[in-house]
Amino acid sequence: MRTPVCDLLGIEQPIIGFSPSEQVAAAVSRAGGLGVLGCVRFNDPAELDAALDYMDANTGGRPYGVDVVMPARVPVEAAASDLEAMIPQVHRDFVERTLLALGVPPLPDGAPDADGVLGWLHSVARKHVEVALAHPARLIANALGSPPPDVIAAAHEHGMLVAALAGAPKHAQAQVANGVDIVVAQGYEAGGHTGEIGSMVLIPEIVDAVGDRVPVLAAGGIGCGRQVAAALALGAAGAWMGSAWLLTREYAQMTSAPAVQQALLAATSSDTVRSRIYSGKPARLLKNRWTAAWEQPDAPEPLRMPLQNLLVAGAHQRLMRSGQPDVVPMPAGQVVGRISEIRPVAAVIESLVAEMDETLRRLGGLG
Amino acid sequence: MRTPVCDLLGIEQPIIGFSPSEQVAAAVSRAGGLGVLGCVRFNDPAELDAALDYMDANTGGRPYGVDVVMPARVPVEAAASDLEAMIPQVHRDFVERTLLALGVPPLPDGAPDADGVLGWLHSVARKHVEVALAHPARLIANALGSPPPDVIAAAHEHGMLVAALAGAPKHAQAQVANGVDIVVAQGYEAGGHTGEIGSMVLIPEIVDAVGDRVPVLAAGGIGCGRQVAAALALGAAGAWMGSAWLLTREYAQMTSAPAVQQALLAATSSDTVRSRIYSGKPARLLKNRWTAAWEQPDAPEPLRMPLQNLLVAGAHQRLMRSGQPDVVPMPAGQVVGRISEIRPVAAVIESLVAEMDETLRRLGGLG
Repeated sequence: MRTPVCDLLGIEQPIIGFSPSEQVAAAVSRAGGLGVLGCVRFNDPAELDAALDYMDANTGGRPYGVDVVMPARVPVEAAASDLEAMIPQVHRDFVERTLLALGVPPLPDGAPDADGVLGWLHSVARKHVEVALAHPARLIANALGSPPPDVIAAAHEHGMLVAALAGAPKHAQAQVANGVDIVVAQGYEAGGHTGEIGSMVLIPEIVDAVGDRVPVLAAGGIGCGRQVAAALALGAAGAWMGSAWLLTREYAQMTSAPAVQQALLAATSSDTVRSRIYSGKPARLLKNRWTAAWEQPDAPEPLRMPLQNLLVAGAHQRLMRSGQPDVVPMPAGQVVGRISEIRPVAAVIESLVAEMDETLRRLGGLG
Repeated sequence: MRTPVCDLLGIEQPIIGFSPSEQVAAAVSRAGGLGVLGCVRFNDPAELDAALDYMDANTGGRPYGVDVVMPARVPVEAAASDLEAMIPQVHRDFVERTLLALGVPPLPDGAPDADGVLGWLHSVARKHVEVALAHPARLIANALGSPPPDVIAAAHEHGMLVAALAGAPKHAQAQVANGVDIVVAQGYEAGGHTGEIGSMVLIPEIVDAVGDRVPVLAAGGIGCGRQVAAALALGAAGAWMGSAWLLTREYAQMTSAPAVQQALLAATSSDTVRSRIYSGKPARLLKNRWTAAWEQPDAPEPLRMPLQNLLVAGAHQRLMRSGQPDVVPMPAGQVVGRISEIRPVAAVIESLVAEMDETLRRLGGLG
């Protein structure tokens, strides 16, 4: 099944697979989709460089992409130590009190401190871009909208396409005006940073808003072939999927925490929540005792990006190590409720394509 | 375009149109869909009887349905005067203070007091059912899930089908076990009472949960033909639409307030909010200065159903009469952002069907 976006990206299936894991992203590309590596977790650009070396060696010459996180407006920018000083004591006290109440132990002596996710910093995201430009990536995507004009220009000079995620039609229009090549319309159902408009409404709205100037990928709530077909019905040129890869063998190679996979397997579509507690901007996470604590009357308002993630970085490490599935801090979309087994990425894509084809045949029979 | 649900309901297009207006509902049935009259606004069963007489006379012998509101658990039940006594003074004070701050004048002398929507009361909903059973309706739907077993049995004895709205798979499964004939999977995007799972995720999940025992209609975020086609791709047998009819000539006959249509025309898909302030249960409304006031730190928690609507009934009357588009208390789905003109119901359905057919042809070309 080919759409024009397949030709544009040089892929066989209109499936774009976002993952923070280079194993997942490489496997998506090998299976005929476009694997997109999420860069935000790489505080050290050298680690991203190594991950992209892995992509270069393991995608069999097929195209892949990278995803950076550059807010449209440059947020608080400062050295890590200065940022730490901006975090109110009342917030630190709440986190400590909550971890105690949840029965989450401190880190063992000698465990390295978590640095927080510095990839939210504009300066760090720019280093990610520099590293990516030195690799043969086909696409550079920005999770928080249009990248700055010089980043778009540099990507184009290197023969890369630029994609931007949009949660509202006006954002998509601004992105196209800025020179973005592909808009990813991301609905409320999505994991991680996401807006309030559901995919069913948002996708055709953004398709109509950008017209035939650029193709639109559909994101948010897509995990099976019927959902890919629905995205195509709504006018999208393909599907951008993230949560679908969380329960794959390749993703399991990255996370050492069985509690995470246990939590993901147990989650239903009602078990996620959109909250600012992860990064400072609204992001969909698994709903559990940790997210519930932040909804109690005694909880402070989450801080702004990037302070909130610095505040909770140590807590995230402790929550992950605790081995308790009902406290893991984990971005995930509502579609996680539809995944009940751990499979290789290639098998996930094979099922997706088969169900998509079957759906198109079924719809053809209705006409 | 026919699906099996067309044969089941005796209609020509898989489009089910819910509206509190008998003019809209009758027009949907005349145009080949199934018009479903919302009963909750009829405090006096005799008024519902008259509206159904209108349906009988104006649907040209084509099938129609009725929609009642029966919570699964019987809520607070008492005489209107006793219910009034359960409303805390702090809530009444907040409403008065807010209306003053919004510049909403009191009702003119001699204007009748609003009664609130008593249709939320189980006893009143039961009277709606009794009235409906005396008319040749084809379908009785319950907006809040499975009706009680005796209501299902009575409907079946009268040759009527029973539908129930579901916002989560477990509710759909319970409804089918109770004998419901059609499940309406209603996603987060929907206007009025709605859950938290987006349509893209919810529809296939409910289709899979009920299997081939009953057909599933898709609701929430459906207003154009691509969205109907997407619903069919997701496995639904047809589309249940509500907000799409708010901007029709027939609906304009019911509401005397130009401010409402002005507000609906101006709204974008970002201009709705899910809130308990209308009825006590989460319902999607137009977002405006009235809904914002309830999100301020000084606002009390909304009361439970049916007290909240009794609390705000007088305020609703005043807000509607104020002529200010930015305060109208109005249930509406996110799809309202895609409607920019007032057309006859028949023209809306004609466009829907044409776009649906065109979408199926386009998808056929991709295979």
